[in-house]
Amino acid sequence: MQAHTNAAKETPHTASPQRVWQHLCQEGEQVIQDEPLLASFVHAFVLKHDNLPSSLSFMAANKLSDGVLPMITLYELFLDAYEQAPAIADAAAYDITAVYERDPAINQTLTILLYLKGYHAIQIHRVANTLWQQNRKNLALYIQSRSSAVFGVDIHPAARIGQGVMFDHATGIVIGETAVIGDDVSILQGVTLGGTGKDCGDRHPKVRSGVLIGCGAQILGNIEIGANAKVGAGSVVLQDVPANATVVGVPAIKVGQNKTQHPSQDMNQNVLEGVDLSQFIHFGHGI
Amino acid sequence: MQAHTNAAKETPHTASPQRVWQHLCQEGEQVIQDEPLLASFVHAFVLKHDNLPSSLSFMAANKLSDGVLPMITLYELFLDAYEQAPAIADAAAYDITAVYERDPAINQTLTILLYLKGYHAIQIHRVANTLWQQNRKNLALYIQSRSSAVFGVDIHPAARIGQGVMFDHATGIVIGETAVIGDDVSILQGVTLGGTGKDCGDRHPKVRSGVLIGCGAQILGNIEIGANAKVGAGSVVLQDVPANATVVGVPAIKVGQNKTQHPSQDMNQNVLEGVDLSQFIHFGHGI
Amino acid sequence: MQAHTNAAKETPHTASPQRVWQHLCQEGEQVIQDEPLLASFVHAFVLKHDNLPSSLSFMAANKLSDGVLPMITLYELFLDAYEQAPAIADAAAYDITAVYERDPAINQTLTILLYLKGYHAIQIHRVANTLWQQNRKNLALYIQSRSSAVFGVDIHPAARIGQGVMFDHATGIVIGETAVIGDDVSILQGVTLGGTGKDCGDRHPKVRSGVLIGCGAQILGNIEIGANAKVGAGSVVLQDVPANATVVGVPAIKVGQNKTQHPSQDMNQNVLEGVDLSQFIHFGHGI
Amino acid sequence: MQAHTNAAKETPHTASPQRVWQHLCQEGEQVIQDEPLLASFVHAFVLKHDNLPSSLSFMAANKLSDGVLPMITLYELFLDAYEQAPAIADAAAYDITAVYERDPAINQTLTILLYLKGYHAIQIHRVANTLWQQNRKNLALYIQSRSSAVFGVDIHPAARIGQGVMFDHATGIVIGETAVIGDDVSILQGVTLGGTGKDCGDRHPKVRSGVLIGCGAQILGNIEIGANAKVGAGSVVLQDVPANATVVGVPAIKVGQNKTQHPSQDMNQNVLEGVDLSQFIHFGHGI
Amino acid sequence: MQAHTNAAKETPHTASPQRVWQHLCQEGEQVIQDEPLLASFVHAFVLKHDNLPSSLSFMAANKLSDGVLPMITLYELFLDAYEQAPAIADAAAYDITAVYERDPAINQTLTILLYLKGYHAIQIHRVANTLWQQNRKNLALYIQSRSSAVFGVDIHPAARIGQGVMFDHATGIVIGETAVIGDDVSILQGVTLGGTGKDCGDRHPKVRSGVLIGCGAQILGNIEIGANAKVGAGSVVLQDVPANATVVGVPAIKVGQNKTQHPSQDMNQNVLEGVDLSQFIHFGHGI
Amino acid sequence: MQAHTNAAKETPHTASPQRVWQHLCQEGEQVIQDEPLLASFVHAFVLKHDNLPSSLSFMAANKLSDGVLPMITLYELFLDAYEQAPAIADAAAYDITAVYERDPAINQTLTILLYLKGYHAIQIHRVANTLWQQNRKNLALYIQSRSSAVFGVDIHPAARIGQGVMFDHATGIVIGETAVIGDDVSILQGVTLGGTGKDCGDRHPKVRSGVLIGCGAQILGNIEIGANAKVGAGSVVLQDVPANATVVGVPAIKVGQNKTQHPSQDMNQNVLEGVDLSQFIHFGHGI
Repeated sequence: MQAHTNAAKETPHTASPQRVWQHLCQEGEQVIQDEPLLASFVHAFVLKHDNLPSSLSFMAANKLSDGVLPMITLYELFLDAYEQAPAIADAAAYDITAVYERDPAINQTLTILLYLKGYHAIQIHRVANTLWQQNRKNLALYIQSRSSAVFGVDIHPAARIGQGVMFDHATGIVIGETAVIGDDVSILQGVTLGGTGKDCGDRHPKVRSGVLIGCGAQILGNIEIGANAKVGAGSVVLQDVPANATVVGVPAIKVGQNKTQHPSQDMNQNVLEGVDLSQFIHFGHGI
Repeated sequence: MQAHTNAAKETPHTASPQRVWQHLCQEGEQVIQDEPLLASFVHAFVLKHDNLPSSLSFMAANKLSDGVLPMITLYELFLDAYEQAPAIADAAAYDITAVYERDPAINQTLTILLYLKGYHAIQIHRVANTLWQQNRKNLALYIQSRSSAVFGVDIHPAARIGQGVMFDHATGIVIGETAVIGDDVSILQGVTLGGTGKDCGDRHPKVRSGVLIGCGAQILGNIEIGANAKVGAGSVVLQDVPANATVVGVPAIKVGQNKTQHPSQDMNQNVLEGVDLSQFIHFGHGI
Repeated sequence: MQAHTNAAKETPHTASPQRVWQHLCQEGEQVIQDEPLLASFVHAFVLKHDNLPSSLSFMAANKLSDGVLPMITLYELFLDAYEQAPAIADAAAYDITAVYERDPAINQTLTILLYLKGYHAIQIHRVANTLWQQNRKNLALYIQSRSSAVFGVDIHPAARIGQGVMFDHATGIVIGETAVIGDDVSILQGVTLGGTGKDCGDRHPKVRSGVLIGCGAQILGNIEIGANAKVGAGSVVLQDVPANATVVGVPAIKVGQNKTQHPSQDMNQNVLEGVDLSQFIHFGHGI
Repeated sequence: MQAHTNAAKETPHTASPQRVWQHLCQEGEQVIQDEPLLASFVHAFVLKHDNLPSSLSFMAANKLSDGVLPMITLYELFLDAYEQAPAIADAAAYDITAVYERDPAINQTLTILLYLKGYHAIQIHRVANTLWQQNRKNLALYIQSRSSAVFGVDIHPAARIGQGVMFDHATGIVIGETAVIGDDVSILQGVTLGGTGKDCGDRHPKVRSGVLIGCGAQILGNIEIGANAKVGAGSVVLQDVPANATVVGVPAIKVGQNKTQHPSQDMNQNVLEGVDLSQFIHFGHGI
Repeated sequence: MQAHTNAAKETPHTASPQRVWQHLCQEGEQVIQDEPLLASFVHAFVLKHDNLPSSLSFMAANKLSDGVLPMITLYELFLDAYEQAPAIADAAAYDITAVYERDPAINQTLTILLYLKGYHAIQIHRVANTLWQQNRKNLALYIQSRSSAVFGVDIHPAARIGQGVMFDHATGIVIGETAVIGDDVSILQGVTLGGTGKDCGDRHPKVRSGVLIGCGAQILGNIEIGANAKVGAGSVVLQDVPANATVVGVPAIKVGQNKTQHPSQDMNQNVLEGVDLSQFIHFGHGI
Repeated sequence: MQAHTNAAKETPHTASPQRVWQHLCQEGEQVIQDEPLLASFVHAFVLKHDNLPSSLSFMAANKLSDGVLPMITLYELFLDAYEQAPAIADAAAYDITAVYERDPAINQTLTILLYLKGYHAIQIHRVANTLWQQNRKNLALYIQSRSSAVFGVDIHPAARIGQGVMFDHATGIVIGETAVIGDDVSILQGVTLGGTGKDCGDRHPKVRSGVLIGCGAQILGNIEIGANAKVGAGSVVLQDVPANATVVGVPAIKVGQNKTQHPSQDMNQNVLEGVDLSQFIHFGHGI
């Protein structure tokens, strides 16, 4: 994991789920060669499985088991969900390629599968969401609860999450019941997609594709964060954000248009780059 | 758990602790009918117990056990505490009704008991606080430490917390040694009630009844947050907040008076609703 | 743990690692006297060990074990690392004295060793960093991953951390791959030392000695936080901060020079103390 | 489980595996009604499964897991074996009916599935034997080893065991590599079917159908115990035993012909009943 | 535990249960002094408890828990049984003094409580028997099953066992449903008190007070072993044995009268001592 | 593990402990190739260790841990014992070659290390005996107790056991406090080397080198079993047995001289081979 350029990174973006799995297994074999101490760990989580859903089901059972609901029960529950909803297995493979492309600290896909709790939390949510849609709501809530305790990531099982989504570091992320997250979104640790009241119904943010939400940002209410928008770290967003806009502040204001087309992929949290500072000061934010 | 109106919700507010427990057991029986997979879980946490303190003691032992201090030791410790301080058992029942009323994503009280780590953390704190007052400080610190590790909620055992308190989502909440929280307060994830220095003595916030503190707000020092005040998400509060006021920003400024009487129950984090914007801009916050 | 003055606190600052260990053991014996219920816990974590590295290795194995990699494997891994890199054992002893001096809620050093997850996370990171430098990167990533899941503290194993560092409360802290933290720094819960893009290379903050970073602050990019600077809670820092300066806001602006020489030790998060408010308002922040 | 006559017992002998499973589930529902404390146990071992092989696979994984090989790995291994060799699932159902008929202390079939370690050991052996035949000998030996440690029943995976076999109480039973056990055999605790030397090849007893072997009997060498023979408790058998004969003593001698046709079903260990004592004394055994 | 004379042993025979418990605790304190490594073990099993029933309940929960039925459930079940049937707590104390007097390898009573699985199995049986009498038969069978798996001691919960009973070494002991064991009986490893057929009803041995049954003896059928009789090791007993008689052989014959009055206390398994050999040979046993 | 001739077996008898360990590791690598499912198991128990004592210490910790005394404590205890008494590590290697030579069902040495509980029990006893000699008697008794519970093999820690000893199958073996077992002895399941009374002092059998003791034999009192003697299965021995003699029966009588020189290695339990039957019948045993 020495310094490397992105150019040097293989782009597995278009790879099929099966090729992603093969790649993970090859890396797993390599890890065992390099670090025999991890052999049992890599075998149990990766090499003994036939495919990604089986590996993820084992991961979920290992993480979520609470000493009362047996691991095996959880394992089978996840296996069944992947069988009934194969699209979430495809999304799991796609997410790996998405994170691999965006995270400069990652230079093997196996790291994502084995170590990133944001990745774990998303995959577990997809299964909870499947159960929720099957009206097995108590099971879905059980899984949400365990995921919140284990990862510190609290996603209501009814929330809808697209493909190619990355939760970086992930601790403290909260996603509400009627929130929607589009494809290829990047969300950092400490972000809330929350509600604004005790009324039921549609009350959480809609985050469109390509959005980057910086660490610690609080986005509240049934508002829209437009495609390819960028929310600065620590911002509190209470109003709609136009597509391609950058917002920042408490409460957040618009400070510019993104220079790039893909903020979620560029992962640039510096909201001051390319900002017209005079306009910003006009709205009262000192810099 | 389909969409529902609050009107449709039974208001168990005035229910006795015993009726709350009966209600929980009825819901538990229903869950087992609907989802047999959870039968062992619901039995172990609810149905095999005679009352709420026994159920909570099992929950605490299950969550806090670290593989060294046996679960049974913890279980008995909690049972004893509830016997010696029955008021904290009443508060545990009251908290359930409070959360049930406020959280639009909750439509059975059992969900609170089984799944909400904010609820768990508060009940465990009440026992740690009881031990602290009995001068069993090492035990109290042990419990604080385990709760912080397990839930990501760090409450000093000396902190005083009223009834009807809700910690929503709860990850990252920190409550300092001399903090005081009144009745019917709602606090969201990522909130700190912290100190401002290394001097001992009274150095943490006093939060009065009915207050709502938005997600990620940092409240620091021996200051008072007046009754029914509202602190905006992501705000940093370093000065007293008058009763019924709404504050927002880094550092926080007052932006208006609450339109409602009960911010902690309305759970409306949108601090811009009803705010006199011109006054706000006068203080330099752009919107 | 009754109220006490700092004057009453013994200053173990200059104590040798061996004396720190002796002190911990004496406190451990006392705890068992005062609270027999904790006897097994204190024996397993402290008294049965011959020195601090052995105790810390047990702690790490106990916390990080995932049910697949056996505790014994982790225990030996940590013991070996301490043997190969004795400086990290010295740092572990020094950190205890540093936290003891700064945290007014702590009046025995044993509390730090047994209960503070920030302390645990730092010591575990030092071992992960040692493994990283030995090119055992997969093992280092495994440890980071477990630490992130267990403590909610995510420190990349390549990050460099000095001595006398305190992570207070610690939930949600994130430290990036090329971040550097100097000696005698205090960092509170929810703080990020993050990157600003997907390019590899040096991209994270450099925090110099004596700095205090308030809770929830987000510091992003390859910027420098000068010695003895103070970053206000909830601030978002995107530019260099001069030595001895205090910054606050989203984005953060400089609001004054520290009145004290040692913000990390004074732990005063109140950024308004000693701030020239007129200058501050000039930059648009209302107070 | 009050006193009952055999006449009162339903004879499930001819029941299909599916009906046996249905019967087990009905009894399971009844147990939960009668004894809610066992609800989690009965759910986990019986009611949450769709069929007997699934239930047995869970039992095996629960019993054999050693803290290193994960329960889930064992569970899947057993599920696969039952799928590949459905005959051993039929035998598992047949064994239940056989034990139910013979054991006067048993008045529900569920008791056999849940509680009898002799039954457990036989079913686990059937899977080990299947693996052995598939040339997965190391796995088979692992299972034998765990079964020997957990139940105190040591059956070489190459041994061949028929249907309707009962190991009563079972502690200390040892069955060698080339032993063969026919259908409808009853073997009590402490019995050895052992070899007589260190030469390889066929060296263990062949026990034909309908045989009853009393507790503590040692049967050694490649000898034949003829159909419906009866071996007295504590006997040491070193020579062939004719069909229908009763043998007793150290070394064992023939003391009569069985009065009944089905010693394994009558379970009468009293070898003196119907024995011609004068003949016996002729051979030197005093009575 | 150096060589010692019986004269040197304190005779705690007449001690009250409370004094036995005090004595155990004093020895426990001494063990921790002598062997700090066992401190956590001795605390968890002895010193943290207020009385013998609490200690035994912890022991039972620790031993019997199967990863599905929680330890706490078992612990409470045992506590309740001791409260409802205080006589079995008295018997547990009395058994300790009985074993202490008889076993020359034991020189502290704590050894019996902590280490002897025969003692453990008897105490667990007494609780199972209490549940059986309360018609909680499924629970009683569960406990029997776990005890058989864990200790290799299989006692039907309906069997009746007196006070002052010692199961020495204990592996492989089997006691049938209608067996009765009087007071002050000593039974060694591998002994069966079994039935002789599949008919229900009274079909197991009645062992009167003061009897010694040597290792590996098989006693079968509804026969009586008279008071103070002695059954030689490896014997198979199918007929009544008169009081004070010594029997030996397969099948067993009477070889003499006991020279001592208390075979169960003298623990002399040598059945040839004081035997009139000519009479014995007359019955055909060579010596 | 197909049929093989002894001639085909490599004789590792004279191999050094180091070569035995190398051989075990090679076999371990092969097992992982053949059966990847066992990779984690083989790694944890064998390949991750540097030598046999480390592997055995892990085995012991894994088997003996009771959920109260941590695995790591046991592991270190065993490591220390092997360091202080290297002779028991040599004996552990020698035992492997001895079992490998004698047991026709074994065709790889790894099977002995991984799977044979008789081998495990002997190695654990050697450590318990070392502790006993160091006057750490409580620890030694703890280990005996756990070994008795886990393996059903009960060896008093003071008993002295030579090299090249095999406990085949092993369930139910009991070895008393003053028993002595010489080199190259083979003992089968269910054998007792017991005492004959409650007097202290030297009261258990002395078994000389080369002896074979058949399954279920009971040998009682301070008697001598001469070198290369053979005790028939199920026999009860109460008197000295001359060197090279074969004894059988209840009580046992001498029935011949061994035809071979090495009964413990030939493992021929058939005591009738080479017996002068007329002499035997003269003593009243029928055949």
